[in-house]
Amino acid sequence: MVKLVLVRHGESVANAANVYTGWNDVPLTEKGEEQARNAGKLINKISNFNPTHIHTSVLSRAITTANIVADVCDFLYLPITKTWRLNERHYGALRGLNKNISRKVFGAEQVLEWRRGFDSVPPKQGSPIIDRRYRFCDQHLMPRAESLHQTQLRLMPYYYDEVASRMLMGEDQLIVAHGSSLRALIKKIENTSDHDIVKLEVPNAQPIIYTMDDHLNIINKEILK
Amino acid sequence: MVKLVLVRHGESVANAANVYTGWNDVPLTEKGEEQARNAGKLINKISNFNPTHIHTSVLSRAITTANIVADVCDFLYLPITKTWRLNERHYGALRGLNKNISRKVFGAEQVLEWRRGFDSVPPKQGSPIIDRRYRFCDQHLMPRAESLHQTQLRLMPYYYDEVASRMLMGEDQLIVAHGSSLRALIKKIENTSDHDIVKLEVPNAQPIIYTMDDHLNIINKEILK
Repeated sequence: MVKLVLVRHGESVANAANVYTGWNDVPLTEKGEEQARNAGKLINKISNFNPTHIHTSVLSRAITTANIVADVCDFLYLPITKTWRLNERHYGALRGLNKNISRKVFGAEQVLEWRRGFDSVPPKQGSPIIDRRYRFCDQHLMPRAESLHQTQLRLMPYYYDEVASRMLMGEDQLIVAHGSSLRALIKKIENTSDHDIVKLEVPNAQPIIYTMDDHLNIINKEILK
Repeated sequence: MVKLVLVRHGESVANAANVYTGWNDVPLTEKGEEQARNAGKLINKISNFNPTHIHTSVLSRAITTANIVADVCDFLYLPITKTWRLNERHYGALRGLNKNISRKVFGAEQVLEWRRGFDSVPPKQGSPIIDRRYRFCDQHLMPRAESLHQTQLRLMPYYYDEVASRMLMGEDQLIVAHGSSLRALIKKIENTSDHDIVKLEVPNAQPIIYTMDDHLNIINKEILK
């Protein structure tokens, strides 16, 4: 038996402002930092959780959450990998837009479709990403907008190669990522239908614990609050 | 030209209590966290410093310093490696002893010799290290006490393979480590004599910047305060 724990970052400045964020880099709010500390305390209560590795995105709100959780759980010494493949879904031209305003501009139905349709791609960002954190990534890989499905397709290679491979050796793993990138992952792990994934929300900083058998079949799922 | 920046962690609880620490894991004091933030601000003033990797030990005081510096410098996204090879010198049976008391017990001259003699090994710790953070290390590698020279011998393979190799590709590097492990590294980089290394002190959280040529010969050294 092996454990996988998923944590969405604490409240970010953009969450608080109700703005589409995606690949924009925004810090946690003070409340978000407190939520991260609380997530650490919750993880401390999991019996027999001894991760060998922490996985997170290259976005500060996830990394800071991971660092705070690691501090509270005495996991600071653990190796941590930061990968763009765990980044939030790329919201394209919606990045930085207030969610209410985007509903007024594009219509509530269209926005709901972009947010919730598994294959819906929001309008693309005009120019490619110029950012230090992607300078060693092939620009052909870098999205200008993503559906949840596309997010899943770029995330799963990392999950299989770096997370599942370790769990198959019996090593517990901890992932700290984002609302939609975690939804994409959960959909695959739980084999959720395109229809049912629409209803799934991943709240900030509430650890999700999967207990799996030797073949990574899920035996138990628990959400800590 | 390439830059290597070395930072000793901020003040730890053990620094404040004047206690030998070595491989004991102790947190930063509040003053130490503030020193780390200040080190980040100083590093921000270095022109043309664009590290591709952060290197630190598996001890919390160095990792927390690295995380704080990364936050202040907007380096959070950078890969960070935590290795026992950058750990502080292992002080053997002196671990946890107050420095004044150890002078009374062993005599001031003997203690000075242990602290400053390049090849002096303090009394060994009785039992091997049992600690999660070393569970994937061959126990035969794990010291029970180290001279500064022994510290240097276990540190340099990491430096050559993981730090120097990147600098030879033109990538700036950042190391956040400990007073004596940095002394051991500096002795090698600067080719300091056994006699002169005695006088070298590495203060908490004062970044040391080396500018090197394409063959990693030192062109300039600067200490920021």
